[in-house]
Amino acid sequence: VDITELHFAQRMNGLTGSAIREIFKYVSKPGVISFAGGNPGAFALPHEDVARISGELLRSQGKTLLQYGATEGYFPLRESLVGYIEDTFQARFAPQEIVITSGSMQGLDLLCKALINPGDVVLAESPTFVGALQCLNAYQAQVLPLKCDDTGIDPDHLEEMIKTHHAKMLYTIPTFQNPTGITLSLERRKRIAGLAAKYGVVVAEDDPYHSLRYTGEALPSIKSFDTSGWVVLLGSFSKVIAPGLRVGFMAGSEIILRRCVTCKQCADVHTANLNQAIVDVYLRQGLLTPHIRAILPGYGARMACMLEYLSTIPQIRHFTKPEGGLFIFVSFDEDKDVAALFNAAIGKGVAFVPGSPFYPEGGHKNTLRLNFSSASLEDIKRGMDLLNQYIQTSMS
Amino acid sequence: VDITELHFAQRMNGLTGSAIREIFKYVSKPGVISFAGGNPGAFALPHEDVARISGELLRSQGKTLLQYGATEGYFPLRESLVGYIEDTFQARFAPQEIVITSGSMQGLDLLCKALINPGDVVLAESPTFVGALQCLNAYQAQVLPLKCDDTGIDPDHLEEMIKTHHAKMLYTIPTFQNPTGITLSLERRKRIAGLAAKYGVVVAEDDPYHSLRYTGEALPSIKSFDTSGWVVLLGSFSKVIAPGLRVGFMAGSEIILRRCVTCKQCADVHTANLNQAIVDVYLRQGLLTPHIRAILPGYGARMACMLEYLSTIPQIRHFTKPEGGLFIFVSFDEDKDVAALFNAAIGKGVAFVPGSPFYPEGGHKNTLRLNFSSASLEDIKRGMDLLNQYIQTSMS
Repeated sequence: VDITELHFAQRMNGLTGSAIREIFKYVSKPGVISFAGGNPGAFALPHEDVARISGELLRSQGKTLLQYGATEGYFPLRESLVGYIEDTFQARFAPQEIVITSGSMQGLDLLCKALINPGDVVLAESPTFVGALQCLNAYQAQVLPLKCDDTGIDPDHLEEMIKTHHAKMLYTIPTFQNPTGITLSLERRKRIAGLAAKYGVVVAEDDPYHSLRYTGEALPSIKSFDTSGWVVLLGSFSKVIAPGLRVGFMAGSEIILRRCVTCKQCADVHTANLNQAIVDVYLRQGLLTPHIRAILPGYGARMACMLEYLSTIPQIRHFTKPEGGLFIFVSFDEDKDVAALFNAAIGKGVAFVPGSPFYPEGGHKNTLRLNFSSASLEDIKRGMDLLNQYIQTSMS
Repeated sequence: VDITELHFAQRMNGLTGSAIREIFKYVSKPGVISFAGGNPGAFALPHEDVARISGELLRSQGKTLLQYGATEGYFPLRESLVGYIEDTFQARFAPQEIVITSGSMQGLDLLCKALINPGDVVLAESPTFVGALQCLNAYQAQVLPLKCDDTGIDPDHLEEMIKTHHAKMLYTIPTFQNPTGITLSLERRKRIAGLAAKYGVVVAEDDPYHSLRYTGEALPSIKSFDTSGWVVLLGSFSKVIAPGLRVGFMAGSEIILRRCVTCKQCADVHTANLNQAIVDVYLRQGLLTPHIRAILPGYGARMACMLEYLSTIPQIRHFTKPEGGLFIFVSFDEDKDVAALFNAAIGKGVAFVPGSPFYPEGGHKNTLRLNFSSASLEDIKRGMDLLNQYIQTSMS
């Protein structure tokens, strides 16, 4: 039998591979100015501290770290996350309510594996993180889009959607959302925690950008208002330490986490010990807070530069004004399509991501996402100049 | 709504968490002699080389390694695996036909995600690796047991089972199988590759113990006889370098691997770069072959010691005589149950794993698995003395 006759699982039908991953082929070429990815800037990666900590750990407890570890995670890290999560997200957990994941994407994957039957309704911001949409599609969830404005999900619409569609789960990125950069307001956070408890809907609160705030006041997590156990907080060190380490966490009710741990046992057994221990020591040595403080001005200046440039382009109908995170979302008039702009820009060495793949319902070809964390300030200016030239010719 | 009213996904019904993982609670207590796990001995973990390599890597290319990486894997490692796989498994691949996974368990998970619909028939050795059974159950595969003897799967029975049940996949551990230690003969390897092509059955060839051979001649992989693309080789560095690093690989047809990569995108995005680069440099510096050569005598002596002891216990009806790997499988008379022996031994600080959970069809309460890689030679003698005492009282 020829291998081309192999049938894949039904769940693969809706899963064609990320359009965005294709774009990364262009992005990795030397000289390309990338507004496409979600990569931290090179200046924000603390490789010297990681090198030192890694060396110390392998010399002092190498045998333990190279051995198999617990599926739930490296216990010292689960302990040090108690304080980290309380300080950052204003939510209190016991170590037993925290499970270490291989990035926060794995947290969503494990939640879906434990919870989602084919056809189950999952509500999500529209637009939302394309990787999350892929993950939900792989579990054959029916993803329904939620109306959002500049302070996030409309809670009245959310309640209506929960009731109408008997939603199983809400997937939300409440802070500096991907792709919009928008932050859910305090009132709405409280309201969503209440709706979760009232209707019995699991909330996957994905909050990897929380500490990357350049203006305004930090907000408590949705989880901090959850008295019922229906909210699970997904966190990551990819944006504040290093994505290459693949260390994140999920924190929530042990009733849910126990099942996620069973799923993790037969997914990757456990997250690599050395990587967990590096994050643990980074936290315990008090390095994270000063590191974040040191990188915020660089990111903030890049965002301000890009926002200022966007305000000078008359063809742009709307762009978001985030207070932090990595992304700005741009809309042209509804009859426009960014495809020609994308091709022209790529041809000249500037990359961005069209907005359409971020919408659960598709469409919105008049939108695009800009990332400002990866390029230098100079490259942001050069890249925006080039983009603007093509906007003048192709979007007028 | 109270959180206890949460409904989990149907796939969780058959997934109660590994009975074996429960045993590990006892095993981690100080002073316990463990024949229970599959852990490498502490002497076999090259922590000094890993510490040196890790330091060099983070100093010379820290920024790159801490950044996001490709889902397919760190390209230098995919390149160096070409030679490694050819030398070890006698199978040739291009780098594009090799994908790095977070341990070989993830390879099976990705294969299942890409291929298995609920109810699909997967054939497996009986008994087989309990983690693989859990993984297959999570995808609601119907796992059917295959007859095996002391040279592995009976190929006539395999062919009959493929035809009768329209099997989608064969999961096999051909070399020093877990839990039996048995190795599939050369003739049967050829025959299985042929059956895969004839009937269009995917073979997941899981071969993590391949290099741990203490006597006899190395055999080529099933994959080495595959001209059709239906065999996927799953490999791991957990048993020859360090399980804590979580680095494995899958090698096979790009038609299959492309879909697995899509699944990995929304599982853990990519395997941690530092861990991949450590394995890459370990291979490129030629450290693996001498390391394996150095650890084989220690493992071989432990196995020989345990085998000799087993031959002196008259109540044991059968035990396997492996040429390598980590495990020996022991059977008592069919009317016996190892439960009482297990409890008595645990009470005195000796742990093993009952055989029943390894059988897709259950039963076989008269069997148990012994691991000889984790305890020292002295502890093996002490532990076997204790076990023998309880066998004399509880199994006679």
